[in-house]
Amino acid sequence: MFAVIMAGGRGTRFWPRSRKRRPKQLLAILGEKTILEQTVERSLPLCGWDRMLLVTEGEQAPLIRDLFPQLPSDQLLVEPLGRNTAPCIGLAALFVAERDPEETMVILPADHHIADIEDFRDTLNAAVQAAQEGEVLITLGIPPTFPETGYGYIEQGDPVKSGCARGVWGVKAFHEKPDRKKAEAMLAAGRFFWNSGMFIWTAAAIMKQFARWTPALYRELLGLKNQSGRPGWEKALREAYERMEDISIDYAVMEKADNVRMIEGRFGWNDVGSWEAVYQLSEKDGRGNYFQGPVIDLDSRGCLVYSPQKTVALLGVQDLVVVDTPEALLICPRERSQEVKKIVERLTAEGREDLL
Amino acid sequence: MFAVIMAGGRGTRFWPRSRKRRPKQLLAILGEKTILEQTVERSLPLCGWDRMLLVTEGEQAPLIRDLFPQLPSDQLLVEPLGRNTAPCIGLAALFVAERDPEETMVILPADHHIADIEDFRDTLNAAVQAAQEGEVLITLGIPPTFPETGYGYIEQGDPVKSGCARGVWGVKAFHEKPDRKKAEAMLAAGRFFWNSGMFIWTAAAIMKQFARWTPALYRELLGLKNQSGRPGWEKALREAYERMEDISIDYAVMEKADNVRMIEGRFGWNDVGSWEAVYQLSEKDGRGNYFQGPVIDLDSRGCLVYSPQKTVALLGVQDLVVVDTPEALLICPRERSQEVKKIVERLTAEGREDLL
Repeated sequence: MFAVIMAGGRGTRFWPRSRKRRPKQLLAILGEKTILEQTVERSLPLCGWDRMLLVTEGEQAPLIRDLFPQLPSDQLLVEPLGRNTAPCIGLAALFVAERDPEETMVILPADHHIADIEDFRDTLNAAVQAAQEGEVLITLGIPPTFPETGYGYIEQGDPVKSGCARGVWGVKAFHEKPDRKKAEAMLAAGRFFWNSGMFIWTAAAIMKQFARWTPALYRELLGLKNQSGRPGWEKALREAYERMEDISIDYAVMEKADNVRMIEGRFGWNDVGSWEAVYQLSEKDGRGNYFQGPVIDLDSRGCLVYSPQKTVALLGVQDLVVVDTPEALLICPRERSQEVKKIVERLTAEGREDLL
Repeated sequence: MFAVIMAGGRGTRFWPRSRKRRPKQLLAILGEKTILEQTVERSLPLCGWDRMLLVTEGEQAPLIRDLFPQLPSDQLLVEPLGRNTAPCIGLAALFVAERDPEETMVILPADHHIADIEDFRDTLNAAVQAAQEGEVLITLGIPPTFPETGYGYIEQGDPVKSGCARGVWGVKAFHEKPDRKKAEAMLAAGRFFWNSGMFIWTAAAIMKQFARWTPALYRELLGLKNQSGRPGWEKALREAYERMEDISIDYAVMEKADNVRMIEGRFGWNDVGSWEAVYQLSEKDGRGNYFQGPVIDLDSRGCLVYSPQKTVALLGVQDLVVVDTPEALLICPRERSQEVKKIVERLTAEGREDLL
C-alpha cells in the first residue's frame, strides 16, 4: 500500500501562527513535532519510505524536503497551484498507477490528530484488505460525539460482506455541513458519521471513477501520464492544473459513485480545525487555561494563550484565544475561533502580503 | 503664587505602558503631549517659569529635566525615595518658605485631566485670593457625577465669607473611599464632593499645620532648612526621608486641621486613574472602540487597544483593554482595569525587574 499524505493546505484558521509559508501542518501546534511529521510517523510502519507519497504546493515544498530527508525525491509531488482534493488525489493516483494500478492508496490529510495510533493502523490495514477484495471506494466515518456543524456527514447504509477485520458498510448518502438542528438530529439518529476525508482504494478503482464522473480531470491526468521527471514536466503540469476545476473529491466522485463503502474510525479523531480544537486536545490547568509561553494570570478561566516570547498578563478574562507572534496579535473568544479565517480573507482582500 | 506639581507617582495601573522609568505622567496617554506637559502648560500662565516647582523621584528626574529646559534647575525638587504626599508637600513648602513664607502654593498632581482650562485657572486664582485672606487650607472639591468608589469624599460645611470670585465653604468631614452603597447615598445627598488632591495655601499656613499635627515631619523639614544646594544636601535629604513616615497630606493634616476650606471645582476633572478613564475621555468609533495603532476589527465593541507597532486582530470581543508593548501584553476587561496594579504587585513580589 501507498500512503498518500495531502499536505497542501493553508490552515488560515490558525493565523497569525500559520502563515502562507508556515501553514498549519508545518507547525508544532500539538506536541513538539509538526503535525505533518506526526502524520508521516503514524503511517510509516504501514508503508515504509518507499511507499510514502506526499503532495504539497510549491511554496511549502522546500520546507517539507528539509523535514523528510529520507523521502525519495520523486515521492514529493508538488502541485503548481491549489486545486482542492480531486486534482491532488488524481495526481497521486496517476503516480501510483504508473507503478502498479492494483496498488492500494491510503489517502490521509496531513493535519489531523489521532489519539489511538495502534487502532488507527489496524483500521487502515482492514480497509486496505477490503479495498483489495473488490473495486470499491472506502471512506472512514467517525462516530460523532457532539452535534458538530463544521463537518460533512456520511449516512451509513447496510452492512457489506468482507473478509477484513472490521465491519464494512454501504453508504446511503453524503450530507453537507448541517445547521445545528440537523446536526443534533443526526447525532441522535446514530447512523450518521463524520466525513473524515480519509480514503482507501486502488489506483485503478479511483481512476475509473474519475473517468466516469469528471472526464475533464481524467483527460488532464491521462495527458500527464509517464511524463513526470521528463523535460517540460513542470510546464505541462502547470498548464494542466490551470485548466483543472477546483473541486473536492467528495463533490467530484464520492457523492456520485455507487461503489462507496464506509469503515468506522473509532481511534479518536480530530481535524484540529481551529484553536478551539487545540484547546480541547490540550491539558488545561485547574481553571481550564492552556498557556504556551510566559503568562501572568490573575483570575482568568478557559483561555488558550500562545505567546512563546512575550509575557502576557491576563486579568479576569474568560474563554479567550490569544495568539501573539512578532508580526501580529489575535484575540477572539474561543467559540468564534472558526472565524479567524475571515481575518485572513480581509488581509487578502487588502493585499496585506506582510501579514499573510 | 507658586505652582507645585507633584510628579513622583508610578501609575502602575497603566502597566505595561507605564514602567518604573516611564511612569504615567511621562506618557502621552491622552493627546500628543505627556500628561505632565499638559499639567505644566495649564499652570504656566498663572505662575510663569520662575514660580513653577516640580517635585519628583530620582529615577524620573533626568527625563523631566529634558522635558522642561526652561525650568530653573533648582526648581526641580528630587525626592530620594517615595514617601507619599505629606513629605512631598513639606519639601515644597520648605523651598517656598525660604523665599517668602507668605507666598501661596497651588499644589497640583501631575497626572490629572482638566476639560475646561479657562475655568480651572479662574478657580485657582479665586482660591489663591481666598488663601491670602486668612490662614486657611483650601482644597478643591469636585461635584460627583456618579457613585465612584475609588475616590475619597469631602463633606461640604457652611459657606464662609470671602472676597474671592468663587464660593468658599467650610469642610464638615473627609470620608475615605466608600463602598458602592455609601457612594450612592453621598451622590444623592448632594453635599459631598470628590477629593481632587489639589490644595491652595501659603507656605506659612501649611508649615504651621505640619508643626501642630506631624511634629516629627516638621522637625525633619526644619533640619533641612537653608541647606538646599550646599555640600551634603543630597545625603541630608536622603537621611531625612528615610526617617520620615510614609503618609498622605490627607491623613497627616487635612483630616485634623480646623482651618480647612473648600472651593468647588466645576471645570471637568478626571484623575485618569486607569485605562477605563482613558477610554471614557477618548473619542470612540461607531461601535464604541478606541484604537491606537493598527487594528483589524471584526465585530468587536467597547474595546480600548493600545498597540502602536504590532497589528492587532480583534474578532468578536467586547469591552476589553488590550495594551501591547515590546516587553509585555495586557488583556483585561475594561471594568477591571483598576486591578492592573495587582499585576505590578505580583511582578514586584517575583522580582521581575525586567517587566517593572
